[in-house]
Amino acid sequence: MSKKLLRVLRGERVDPPPIWLMRQAGRYLPEYRELREQAGDFLSLATIPDLATEVTLQPVRRFMLDAAILFSDILLVPWGPGQRLEYVSGTGPVLSPIRSAADLLRLSPARLSSAIGSVAQTVRRVRGALGNASSDVALIGFAGAPWTVACYMIEGRGSRDFVAPRMMAYRNAALLDGLIGLLTETTISYLTAQADAGAEAIMLFDSWAGLLPPSQFRRYILAPNCSICAAVRQRFPGLPLIGFPRLAGTMLGEYGVATGVDAAGIDTSVSPEVAASLLPSGVAVQGNLDPLAVLVGGEELEAQTRYILTALDNRPHIFNVGHGILPNTPPKHVEELVRIVRQGPSRPFGRDPAGQTAT
Amino acid sequence: MSKKLLRVLRGERVDPPPIWLMRQAGRYLPEYRELREQAGDFLSLATIPDLATEVTLQPVRRFMLDAAILFSDILLVPWGPGQRLEYVSGTGPVLSPIRSAADLLRLSPARLSSAIGSVAQTVRRVRGALGNASSDVALIGFAGAPWTVACYMIEGRGSRDFVAPRMMAYRNAALLDGLIGLLTETTISYLTAQADAGAEAIMLFDSWAGLLPPSQFRRYILAPNCSICAAVRQRFPGLPLIGFPRLAGTMLGEYGVATGVDAAGIDTSVSPEVAASLLPSGVAVQGNLDPLAVLVGGEELEAQTRYILTALDNRPHIFNVGHGILPNTPPKHVEELVRIVRQGPSRPFGRDPAGQTAT
Repeated sequence: MSKKLLRVLRGERVDPPPIWLMRQAGRYLPEYRELREQAGDFLSLATIPDLATEVTLQPVRRFMLDAAILFSDILLVPWGPGQRLEYVSGTGPVLSPIRSAADLLRLSPARLSSAIGSVAQTVRRVRGALGNASSDVALIGFAGAPWTVACYMIEGRGSRDFVAPRMMAYRNAALLDGLIGLLTETTISYLTAQADAGAEAIMLFDSWAGLLPPSQFRRYILAPNCSICAAVRQRFPGLPLIGFPRLAGTMLGEYGVATGVDAAGIDTSVSPEVAASLLPSGVAVQGNLDPLAVLVGGEELEAQTRYILTALDNRPHIFNVGHGILPNTPPKHVEELVRIVRQGPSRPFGRDPAGQTAT
Repeated sequence: MSKKLLRVLRGERVDPPPIWLMRQAGRYLPEYRELREQAGDFLSLATIPDLATEVTLQPVRRFMLDAAILFSDILLVPWGPGQRLEYVSGTGPVLSPIRSAADLLRLSPARLSSAIGSVAQTVRRVRGALGNASSDVALIGFAGAPWTVACYMIEGRGSRDFVAPRMMAYRNAALLDGLIGLLTETTISYLTAQADAGAEAIMLFDSWAGLLPPSQFRRYILAPNCSICAAVRQRFPGLPLIGFPRLAGTMLGEYGVATGVDAAGIDTSVSPEVAASLLPSGVAVQGNLDPLAVLVGGEELEAQTRYILTALDNRPHIFNVGHGILPNTPPKHVEELVRIVRQGPSRPFGRDPAGQTAT
């Protein structure tokens, strides 16, 4: 009996679908806030294996989700090789921006190995803990895809439109190619280490894929995602891969074909029916509830959840949000969501399968 | 002999396609900056018919474009009925936010008529000027679509993610429905006045359509866009309508079917081929060059332009950018763009049709 999430990733329809949630470990959980305070800063929380293991397990224990996702941050990959990184309250991550070849050359990819070591340690511990506690929970490892990580590295912080990296694609494509190439290599090492340590599936987050016109999407999204998927697959045949080209919209189908991912994450704006029709038929769809619906709860949470369940009923489907859980989300709403998903699309909420009102 | 833009809007393929550019009148033109300085503030420039007429005509004269678009602002529709509006340098528009029924009731839609009057006056003057100077130039009127205008009215300013209006869709849908209803009505009056004054096509800008999950997209994008298109069409049968559901992605096909627009604008992230396949076959496609490519110029401008021309070669197509022209764009690059588009997809740039290098 294999784990539900892994069965869906092999192309099987599972009813009800497995559920996990992007940013399921995080500030909305009181037990997370407590550990975060103990750790002092975010980077310690993400890199001390004992703490990262505990944070990874918290939501799985509380909500009985079908997957744990490694607690980490996509910016460990630039931070490991030496890019200055600070988490500023109210602003988010702030980095010393990469704007020239000299900036790029100051990074030493070899130094990534210590960050990799701590993350691999976390993966091993989580896997050990899951093995004992709940054998149906799969462990997902992850990394940011090269373009998305490059966006932060070049801009130096979060942004509405990331003009600096988009401009670099036009004015200094050679430098951007170099950075994307470096990130492709380091991401392969990083993910290989996670798979070696016991990750059972890998997810690549390309949160800023939607910023690029088609030709640049092919060069900076498709090509590096392809290389990473191919390299990971060569070393770990059969290890399932989930891609998340956020806001890719009409490029979703081409992304699915080109990368050969086993599942594609879709963001909140996407029509699940159209996504299913654009993607090759064997590819599972992961998503795509509006995180605001979880924050607010009640009728809209129920209606949107059922809509997604119904729309993807005939498809290998992993239920998820379309973007990360928001910090002010009441944990009770996540409980409610899990309950609705486990009831499946056809059974009205609050009624038992025979159609009688429960209470 | 009808105007090229109008022929495409009736479903005809025209080679080379007509071209105009979103924000073709604006800060990147020295003649605009001069008038802007004379006017003092932006709202005067947009509402004094002499000035708005001149600004509307500037890019058409300079670049011989196939269409003039009324120089105005989508926020005249809330400003007219009394919402406080200021343009703050470096920040953009700042409004007193609408957060309650009381805020909404303070607006008096009847007061919109004076703003409507000045805009209609501008349309009449532009139409008169175009009639004499260049009979192939079509005049496009426009408005913001209700959801997009509501985003600014509720948030009170531009934003990365417009949390306030998105939250209102969950927590106070009745108030949002009321505001969208009011905007639908005033937008119909506003566009009717523009058509009466001589606008030859109408464009509805839904710049923030991409923020909503499918169910809310249907309620706040499809429904009001439909109502507006139907009402305008009833009063002006045959007046072509262009919709621009920016970042709608996979919802584009449903938008085209539901609204019955004659053309759909597509943003920079969209695959022109997929857009063409999602939209009903009679609907023209308008777009979608990256404005950064125009700012930067050179090889990428040429390559991306030719790619779009080729991808939409078999489709009624209006060449445009996928988002507004950027303030630092050199006017010379717009000239270059117009030249490339007029050469068509198959003729290599810098060579004459016989294949010899021109100089």
